[in-house]
Amino acid sequence: MAEPKTLALDAMGGDHGPEVVIPGAALSLTRNPSLRFVAFGDESRMRAALAEHPRLADRIRLVGTTLAIGMHDKPSQALRRGKGSSMWLALEAVKSGEAQAAISAGNTGALMAISRLILRQIPGIERPAIAAQWPTVRRACIVLDVGSNIGANARQLVEYALMGAAMARAQFGIDRPTVGLLNVGVEEIKGNEDVKEANAWLKRESADLPLTYSGFIEGDQIGQGIVDVVVVEGFAGNIALKTAEGTARQISTYLKGAMTQSLLTKAGALIAKSGFKTLKSLTDPRNLNGAPFLGLNGIAIKSHGGTDAVGFARAIDLGYELAEKRVIDRIAGDIASIAGRLDTAAAGGSG
Amino acid sequence: MAEPKTLALDAMGGDHGPEVVIPGAALSLTRNPSLRFVAFGDESRMRAALAEHPRLADRIRLVGTTLAIGMHDKPSQALRRGKGSSMWLALEAVKSGEAQAAISAGNTGALMAISRLILRQIPGIERPAIAAQWPTVRRACIVLDVGSNIGANARQLVEYALMGAAMARAQFGIDRPTVGLLNVGVEEIKGNEDVKEANAWLKRESADLPLTYSGFIEGDQIGQGIVDVVVVEGFAGNIALKTAEGTARQISTYLKGAMTQSLLTKAGALIAKSGFKTLKSLTDPRNLNGAPFLGLNGIAIKSHGGTDAVGFARAIDLGYELAEKRVIDRIAGDIASIAGRLDTAAAGGSG
Repeated sequence: MAEPKTLALDAMGGDHGPEVVIPGAALSLTRNPSLRFVAFGDESRMRAALAEHPRLADRIRLVGTTLAIGMHDKPSQALRRGKGSSMWLALEAVKSGEAQAAISAGNTGALMAISRLILRQIPGIERPAIAAQWPTVRRACIVLDVGSNIGANARQLVEYALMGAAMARAQFGIDRPTVGLLNVGVEEIKGNEDVKEANAWLKRESADLPLTYSGFIEGDQIGQGIVDVVVVEGFAGNIALKTAEGTARQISTYLKGAMTQSLLTKAGALIAKSGFKTLKSLTDPRNLNGAPFLGLNGIAIKSHGGTDAVGFARAIDLGYELAEKRVIDRIAGDIASIAGRLDTAAAGGSG
Repeated sequence: MAEPKTLALDAMGGDHGPEVVIPGAALSLTRNPSLRFVAFGDESRMRAALAEHPRLADRIRLVGTTLAIGMHDKPSQALRRGKGSSMWLALEAVKSGEAQAAISAGNTGALMAISRLILRQIPGIERPAIAAQWPTVRRACIVLDVGSNIGANARQLVEYALMGAAMARAQFGIDRPTVGLLNVGVEEIKGNEDVKEANAWLKRESADLPLTYSGFIEGDQIGQGIVDVVVVEGFAGNIALKTAEGTARQISTYLKGAMTQSLLTKAGALIAKSGFKTLKSLTDPRNLNGAPFLGLNGIAIKSHGGTDAVGFARAIDLGYELAEKRVIDRIAGDIASIAGRLDTAAAGGSG
C-alpha cells in the first residue's frame, strides 16, 4: 500500500467556510481512514467546527490565517494581494510536499491563477484545463476543458485528451478509457480546423497511448455515457456544462409544478416518494462535486462554492483518489512519451 | 388584414415524407384558416396522404417530382445534384414569390446550402444563422446561431442579435425583446475578443434599436427564460442545444427508471398520471419544432427530421407567423438602419 496522504484544505473558500470544510473532512475520513489534513483559515472558526468532530482532531493540523480571497475578487487582485491567504497557503502546502492535493471551494479564477503561479505547469503541457465530472445514464464521465481557457488549438485538445484519460484511469480504474472529441456533428468534415486536426492526430497516433479514441461526439451524447472522457475547448465546454445544469433545474421546476397541480398528483407523488428520492439522488450535484485543474505539478481541486459538507467530502475523496493513483506522474509520463509527436498536431499534421 | 399567405412544403424531407407533411399542413390549416400551400414531392404518395384530408384539398397545389435530397447527402452534393428536387423547388417557390416561406424536414446542411444559393443573403448581412426555439420556465426564447457557422466575429454576433430580435417581435408580439450574449461569465472581462466587442457595441449603440440589450448571460440562464433572444456563435450554440436535449432525455430516463423501481412507485405514478402528462407536454419538442434560417431574402424553416404531423404543423405555423409579420423586411430594415455603425463592431470599436 502507498504511504498515507495529506490533503490541504482552504477552509475559507466557498459560501460557508470552515462550517462546511471541517465536517466535510470528517465525512471523507470515514471513507478514507488513512487520510490526514492540514487546513488553513480563521482559527477560532476552524476550532469551533472541529469540536463537533473529535475523531478528526488528531488527523488535522490547523493553520490560522486572517487573510481570505473574496468570491468576487479578480484573478489579478488575488495574485497581487492573496499571498498568505487560506487558498494560497493550501497550494503552498502542495508545492512544499506537505500535502498531496489542495481542495478549495473558493473563487475559480483566483484558484486557477494562484495554482498556476505556485504549482507551475507540467513540462510539455501548454495549457492546464478544468475537468468536470458529468453524470450520465451509465457511470460518470469527465469533460474538459470547462472554462480554464477560451479556445484551444489541436495540440492543446490532444493534451486535454491525455489528461482526461489519466484522470479517468485513476478515478474509474480502467486501463484504456474511451475519449471523444465534442463537435457539431460526427462526420469528418464538421467543425473548425483545430477540432479536425486533433481528430486526425488522435486517430493516427493514439494506438500506443493509454486510451481508446472514439472520434467525434455530439452534445446530446455526453449524458448517454458513450465515452469516459469528452474533450472540448473551454468556451463551448463551459457553456455545455452550465446549459446541462440549467436544463436539469428547469425540468425539476416543471416536475415540481406538475406533481403539485392537483390533489391527485400530490397523492400519487407521496405514494411514489421512494422513486422521487431515487431521482433526486441520481441528479444530486453533490455526488460529483470536485473539478481538478489538470496539467499542473500538483493536484488542485475546485469544489462548488455553495456545496455542503456532503458535497465538499466528495471533492476531498477525489483529491485522495488522484493523489493515491499518482495522476500527476501519469500525465507527465504520457506527455513526455509523445513529446516529439505532439508538435505535429499543432503544426497541422492532419495528413 | 394582410393578404393570404402561401407556404411551400418539401414533402420528401425528413424520415417520413408526405405521410407527415400533408397531415401536418391539414393540422396547421385548422389553426390558420387563410393559409394556402404548394407541396413538392412524389405525386402518388402526396395524393394518397391528401385523400385523408379533404378539407386541405382545395388549399394545396401538388407538384410532382421524383428527385429528393437524401438525409445523408453532403451540402456540396446537394448543390450539384439537387436541382429539381422537392427541397430545391420549395425554395424556388419562395424566390419566385409564389410562396412566402418554405418548410422542410430534410437534411440541414443541404437546406442551408440550397437556401443560401437560391434566396441569397439580405444586403448587409454577412452570415445567416439558424435560430432555435428553446423552452424555458417562462415563455420560449430564441437561440441563435445553433450551427449554421463555426465561430462569429463581433459584427456577426450583432447581426444575430438584430435577426433574433426581429423573429422575437414577430413570434412573441413584443416591441423590444430582451437580448443576451451567451458567455462563460457575466463579468465584462470574460470571454473572447469577439464576444467582448459585440457586448461593448450593443451597450453603446442599441438604445435606438428595437431591442433591449441585457448583457452577458450564462448557459444555465437560458432555460430560466431571463431573455427573449440568446446570441452565441454556432459551435457553442449547437453544442448547447444538443447538450440541453441530451440532458432532458437523460433525466427522462432517470425518471422512468425511478417510477418503475417498485410496485409502490408504479402505483403512485399511475395516480399522478395527469402530472406526468403535464410534464410530457412541457418538454415535448414538437411544441417548439421549426428553426428558421435568418438573414436570407426569404423564409426557410428547418423542421426536425423525425417529427410527426403535430410537430411539422408547428414548423408551418412558425413559417406563417414570420411571413405574416414580414420578418424579412424587418431584418433588412434594421440592418440598413445601422449599416454605418455596424462596421465599428468588426473594427474593434469596444470604446
